[in-house]
Amino acid sequence: MTDMDIYIEKANTLVEALPYIKQFRKKVVVIKYGGSFMDDQGIKHSMMDDIALMKLVGIRPILVHGGGKDISNMLKRLEMQSSFIDGLRVTDKETVGIAEMVLCGKINKEIVQLLENRGINAVGISGKDSALLKVHKKEYKDKDLGFVGEVDKVNVKFLQDLIKNDYIPVIAPIGCDHKRETYNINADHVACAVAKAVNAEKLIYLTDTDGVYMDPKDPNSIIRRLNISGVEELIRQGIISGGMIPKVENAVDAIRSGVRSTHILDGTIEHSLLLELFTAAGCGTMIKED
Amino acid sequence: MTDMDIYIEKANTLVEALPYIKQFRKKVVVIKYGGSFMDDQGIKHSMMDDIALMKLVGIRPILVHGGGKDISNMLKRLEMQSSFIDGLRVTDKETVGIAEMVLCGKINKEIVQLLENRGINAVGISGKDSALLKVHKKEYKDKDLGFVGEVDKVNVKFLQDLIKNDYIPVIAPIGCDHKRETYNINADHVACAVAKAVNAEKLIYLTDTDGVYMDPKDPNSIIRRLNISGVEELIRQGIISGGMIPKVENAVDAIRSGVRSTHILDGTIEHSLLLELFTAAGCGTMIKED
Amino acid sequence: MTDMDIYIEKANTLVEALPYIKQFRKKVVVIKYGGSFMDDQGIKHSMMDDIALMKLVGIRPILVHGGGKDISNMLKRLEMQSSFIDGLRVTDKETVGIAEMVLCGKINKEIVQLLENRGINAVGISGKDSALLKVHKKEYKDKDLGFVGEVDKVNVKFLQDLIKNDYIPVIAPIGCDHKRETYNINADHVACAVAKAVNAEKLIYLTDTDGVYMDPKDPNSIIRRLNISGVEELIRQGIISGGMIPKVENAVDAIRSGVRSTHILDGTIEHSLLLELFTAAGCGTMIKED
Amino acid sequence: MTDMDIYIEKANTLVEALPYIKQFRKKVVVIKYGGSFMDDQGIKHSMMDDIALMKLVGIRPILVHGGGKDISNMLKRLEMQSSFIDGLRVTDKETVGIAEMVLCGKINKEIVQLLENRGINAVGISGKDSALLKVHKKEYKDKDLGFVGEVDKVNVKFLQDLIKNDYIPVIAPIGCDHKRETYNINADHVACAVAKAVNAEKLIYLTDTDGVYMDPKDPNSIIRRLNISGVEELIRQGIISGGMIPKVENAVDAIRSGVRSTHILDGTIEHSLLLELFTAAGCGTMIKED
Amino acid sequence: MTDMDIYIEKANTLVEALPYIKQFRKKVVVIKYGGSFMDDQGIKHSMMDDIALMKLVGIRPILVHGGGKDISNMLKRLEMQSSFIDGLRVTDKETVGIAEMVLCGKINKEIVQLLENRGINAVGISGKDSALLKVHKKEYKDKDLGFVGEVDKVNVKFLQDLIKNDYIPVIAPIGCDHKRETYNINADHVACAVAKAVNAEKLIYLTDTDGVYMDPKDPNSIIRRLNISGVEELIRQGIISGGMIPKVENAVDAIRSGVRSTHILDGTIEHSLLLELFTAAGCGTMIKED
Amino acid sequence: MTDMDIYIEKANTLVEALPYIKQFRKKVVVIKYGGSFMDDQGIKHSMMDDIALMKLVGIRPILVHGGGKDISNMLKRLEMQSSFIDGLRVTDKETVGIAEMVLCGKINKEIVQLLENRGINAVGISGKDSALLKVHKKEYKDKDLGFVGEVDKVNVKFLQDLIKNDYIPVIAPIGCDHKRETYNINADHVACAVAKAVNAEKLIYLTDTDGVYMDPKDPNSIIRRLNISGVEELIRQGIISGGMIPKVENAVDAIRSGVRSTHILDGTIEHSLLLELFTAAGCGTMIKED
Repeated sequence: MTDMDIYIEKANTLVEALPYIKQFRKKVVVIKYGGSFMDDQGIKHSMMDDIALMKLVGIRPILVHGGGKDISNMLKRLEMQSSFIDGLRVTDKETVGIAEMVLCGKINKEIVQLLENRGINAVGISGKDSALLKVHKKEYKDKDLGFVGEVDKVNVKFLQDLIKNDYIPVIAPIGCDHKRETYNINADHVACAVAKAVNAEKLIYLTDTDGVYMDPKDPNSIIRRLNISGVEELIRQGIISGGMIPKVENAVDAIRSGVRSTHILDGTIEHSLLLELFTAAGCGTMIKED
Repeated sequence: MTDMDIYIEKANTLVEALPYIKQFRKKVVVIKYGGSFMDDQGIKHSMMDDIALMKLVGIRPILVHGGGKDISNMLKRLEMQSSFIDGLRVTDKETVGIAEMVLCGKINKEIVQLLENRGINAVGISGKDSALLKVHKKEYKDKDLGFVGEVDKVNVKFLQDLIKNDYIPVIAPIGCDHKRETYNINADHVACAVAKAVNAEKLIYLTDTDGVYMDPKDPNSIIRRLNISGVEELIRQGIISGGMIPKVENAVDAIRSGVRSTHILDGTIEHSLLLELFTAAGCGTMIKED
Repeated sequence: MTDMDIYIEKANTLVEALPYIKQFRKKVVVIKYGGSFMDDQGIKHSMMDDIALMKLVGIRPILVHGGGKDISNMLKRLEMQSSFIDGLRVTDKETVGIAEMVLCGKINKEIVQLLENRGINAVGISGKDSALLKVHKKEYKDKDLGFVGEVDKVNVKFLQDLIKNDYIPVIAPIGCDHKRETYNINADHVACAVAKAVNAEKLIYLTDTDGVYMDPKDPNSIIRRLNISGVEELIRQGIISGGMIPKVENAVDAIRSGVRSTHILDGTIEHSLLLELFTAAGCGTMIKED
Repeated sequence: MTDMDIYIEKANTLVEALPYIKQFRKKVVVIKYGGSFMDDQGIKHSMMDDIALMKLVGIRPILVHGGGKDISNMLKRLEMQSSFIDGLRVTDKETVGIAEMVLCGKINKEIVQLLENRGINAVGISGKDSALLKVHKKEYKDKDLGFVGEVDKVNVKFLQDLIKNDYIPVIAPIGCDHKRETYNINADHVACAVAKAVNAEKLIYLTDTDGVYMDPKDPNSIIRRLNISGVEELIRQGIISGGMIPKVENAVDAIRSGVRSTHILDGTIEHSLLLELFTAAGCGTMIKED
Repeated sequence: MTDMDIYIEKANTLVEALPYIKQFRKKVVVIKYGGSFMDDQGIKHSMMDDIALMKLVGIRPILVHGGGKDISNMLKRLEMQSSFIDGLRVTDKETVGIAEMVLCGKINKEIVQLLENRGINAVGISGKDSALLKVHKKEYKDKDLGFVGEVDKVNVKFLQDLIKNDYIPVIAPIGCDHKRETYNINADHVACAVAKAVNAEKLIYLTDTDGVYMDPKDPNSIIRRLNISGVEELIRQGIISGGMIPKVENAVDAIRSGVRSTHILDGTIEHSLLLELFTAAGCGTMIKED
Repeated sequence: MTDMDIYIEKANTLVEALPYIKQFRKKVVVIKYGGSFMDDQGIKHSMMDDIALMKLVGIRPILVHGGGKDISNMLKRLEMQSSFIDGLRVTDKETVGIAEMVLCGKINKEIVQLLENRGINAVGISGKDSALLKVHKKEYKDKDLGFVGEVDKVNVKFLQDLIKNDYIPVIAPIGCDHKRETYNINADHVACAVAKAVNAEKLIYLTDTDGVYMDPKDPNSIIRRLNISGVEELIRQGIISGGMIPKVENAVDAIRSGVRSTHILDGTIEHSLLLELFTAAGCGTMIKED
């Protein structure tokens, strides 16, 4: 390409991006950040760059993070044994205490520091701070999975107070119930509940896979856009299956409550967040109402 | 290029542009718009697109326009003959009346309409509205060039009232002196005076040529960046000459009064404004203090 | 009269005027200014004095002006011939271009300058600025009168932004339709549309005649006050006729839309505006709802 | 005079008055109201009309009233005998109690009611309310005149709180000293202290005589305008003498502290207040700095 | 008690009081102050201390005072004879003038001064100031009791303007009717009307007796809390009788109009106001809706 | 005590407390909370009651907490061995990671929850959130104690944003240096740095001992009040010694920087906070400038 061709390319990208920058200004975007790539230093830094840039052009991100391997590592070091039901770990009182400590005292503060290093003000909180997340015990058949919670209520005013003063809330998925017990919560579910509560413009799941595929083995079969009935049809056909089901169910739940769009992006692709936000084609799979 | 290469290109352009979008938000950029390309419909529309986009992402443009061939055409139709001094047209009272009528009643309103068509609110004014421009008669040796003025004072409050209410001021280069006589003013000079008065971030001259060249015949010899002493040196060497001299003198004058940078861009290149504002390399010649 | 008598006269005039000054503070008064007296320098200056005084005591005037002889003069100089239908000039594309140029580039700026000379900030605009007037083509039987428009919509926010920042809007009767064509509009009709849109306190027509007379030949037969049914009755009886009919129809239209009163004043009487506004007897003919 | 002559007269009076109405808007004017005319019902009502009109056009009056004959009448009814020094009544503790009761409980409330009857909100206060006036005992040679005070400090915030909420303060000349004793104060002196404290535009003394005369017997010898050195000269020459001396001394004191002008008007002439405020010639004697 | 016991006592009192201090912040409490104790210097000072403390912690008191013996004393000194109907004094025009003078010019200003001595800003007003109280003549069978009024309307804005600027209004029970006549009003009734108009949190009657007793001779039989039907029952049974009846009727009237609680306290007990406001047990008799 | 005696006691305690409640409204009080009593459930709850009450009456508390035994317990469970210099533990990188996890993920969130249980909004943060605490490595002779920091800079805006929105900041003593390393910080020192930065009214150290004693064995020898030179004198005499020295040095440092008073209170006495704040005698030892 000649210099002039490069100019034209750049100009076209800008002409394409500028309306989105305008459109998303002051809009809240909730990002679920978690998965295997949390341990990849390169990905982690590029992702924090993207979030810093979003903030810089006036978007208002809220981060919800998961736990990754740090919790299991700590349980192993402390030689705490877990019991399992249907392959699901039972979270007893001591385990939830360790999970809280690792989520709030290690992972959460590390993310905060990565953003602060980029000159962006972030505040690391859990569902306990200003009673952000009120939960109840999650039912699982008639078994007892222990202190695993589901969100009843989000303290929206607290998030707004942080946002309007230009802080990025970074949320660890821990909450209390009405008996003041501490619960661990699925981070995808927290992100969905927060997005609904703040009436977010977008809810973005950064995962290990780039959206929904017609044929998982064929990378060209990615589905760029789905509506609610499309999601239901694909589940019925078995094309959406396994761990992707709760993700798209959260997506549909969020959209039904007023979130404008939900996105499932491959967190391992550099700058996938920027491409999704600022190009016409976007990136990954977008789910909208219709 | 593969799809992935295009993604990477786009992502890089965005990563490059976003800090500029942040940096120029709510900053005032004064644009002198005039020259032979005013009659090229394609250029005119692409330029208005760029100005609309600037506005959309939060920049505050002020336009100053010249007259082009419309004034001479009207004088010819009315069979008004002009006298000349040193090849410069003498602007008598009747001529300045015709110039005002064409500038304020035709060209100014046409630009306003082009911006309105893009959903951008513009207000077409001359130096008479709210006493925007107070002028005195320009001296030229000991000859009388008639009603040709130089700006003494700009009503900054008026421009700010328009800007803060989200209107783009579109300024025709006509003003009054203390004896309430009407004067024609050089549009480059008006743009410089306005940029100084509003303490603009940038003053951009959209001209028929893409900046300053070491060797006018060699398009690769363009000088991308100049400081004040560099300008003086190039004038001394005769590399800057002819009609470019008053342009760079206005540029230096503006910078000395606090404008952050002045730019001379080729108005005939599509989207040269966007490339200048939102890419690291910029476009044309930039003059800064040092 | 003795000195004391003069004192008493003055005191009485003040006692009479003060409540009106209070009552009209911050109220918007739309003034249609146009007619044969536009060429009388004395009248023009006394009228601008009155408008400046109105502004000084806190009234918020909006001026709408017509074109007078300047347009025909220019058409004649350019040797443009017009065709006519039922004696009405057909406004082709070139003619509306000349009309716009004269209205916006000559008459409008001249009025602005006269107000500025009195220390009052005025901004000269047409229906194109900030899309002030959206119009459609006026129907006339089944004939085509060309680019003659009727107002669909007034950009009230634009007028309010000017007014609240203490500028007097001076409006030239030019507007665009949805196909972005330029139209000439009857100034009486623009004044009526603007008065309705801003919910004016008063709409004042400064004309060549001092209101409505029972017997046009008898200057003592002026009708001081009319209500809507009175207007209809007088039209039925043929007492209101000719060019006065559209004026009173505009007046009735304005009142029905919430304007408090409409006035038809003789613009050739010095200070008729002041007498109307600040004396109990008023001046000319006032039309109110009942 | 013909009708047209009357129109012209009225228009001229308005043209003359309007700039003053503009000039005095939101300006504070302190009026000392007291003297023999306090018992004339006609004068009292015309004066209250004038004050109501001042308020109506945006001036901010503060009234200070004296006591007139009501105090002596009450002392007589209660058969309280006074002792005298150099012809001045000695104000013992019981006497000041009666004076306060009559000033605050009778005269003050009557003035308030007269203004309320005109639809103007007035609040009757004494120097005790919100500690408006802090005083010390007035020295008189080496004699003891009892509880007669001089003002040390005015609670400006209290007056401003009333004024900004659109109440006219009506002040009875009573105050306390640091030992919490109650004092009677000369009303001219209170008006002067208040005018200085609020930085009034004007201080107006409504008295029994129309200003300062070169020759008291010649009503045509009134002096319309005096500056500070003029006052001193006239006192030296004995032209200003007797009870007029403390009045002009208060006037000079006020002007030296920033009050723009002081006026001595004949309270017995109807509407003298209006003529002073809104005509070029004014009324009575005006004292300015130079 | 040991030092530690005293500490514990104090801490407990504080733990008890703090929530009330929070609860009553910025709430309006109307206090009727009047009765035989008005002449007891000790009581008077302790009561003013309490009101100052209330203000200090953010409560917004409004005082309404009665007249006590001062009015009768003054009538006696002036040798004014009163006629009586059914033992009730007839208030003729001269009598109401004396009552106004004593209430507004003596008692009102004395209370103001006592508060000012404690560093609290108070403003003494009557129903005439800013037309605070509009009244009509009170009916009494078919007899004429003279100028005795009942409140029709309270100027709430005036009270709010004083309160929001941190002044305590001190109200003398005088008002005007639509014919501009002056009336005396029962102070209990004024307090009730004011409490209703400002939507007070509490209406407190400081009287000579500590609330309502089942058996007036048994000080232990005080009724601490009553609801509306309880009041009606006790009146029916004759347990509430005599002068207490109009008090409790005012109380019930206030509560029905939205006042949260009414209290009848013994003004002769030191700090009864504080105990009522800041302890759980309270003091005197409280009447609430249910 | 009779009922009346109890009333009088209560009233006196209130009369004593009210001015303090007024005085400390909206004032910031920094409380260092830490010591052996952190493990006593009763004390912990009574202390949280006091802090909730402080907040309730308008005081603005900021809490800084230490770590207590939880950190050592966790190190022991993880079988991490520490090296020591002069008996001081060396904090290597792994140790500071565990300290951060326990402080931020366990203790901090537990305090937050205790306040939330009382209906008070608290936000648990460390020096990393919004870059609250910028530190440098603490020097200790020429030995390396590892990641032990001293505060350079406090992000005051962040604390004010929380406070003005009515949240209690609960601060864990962890911070970063310019190389983005994590440091543990002495909590007494953090409390002092925060108090200085926010210009606190009071800095309160809740410790295991009730202030400074002349003779530590004699509980009656407590020193109630000290000024700066008194502190220096007592250190010189060896009366203040050991672990009390850094505490009083922090106290003096805070006072020299504008904190109004510092207090050393026995955290084990119930409600010692309330007694200090709201009684004249106070509690513990107060250090003021003079």
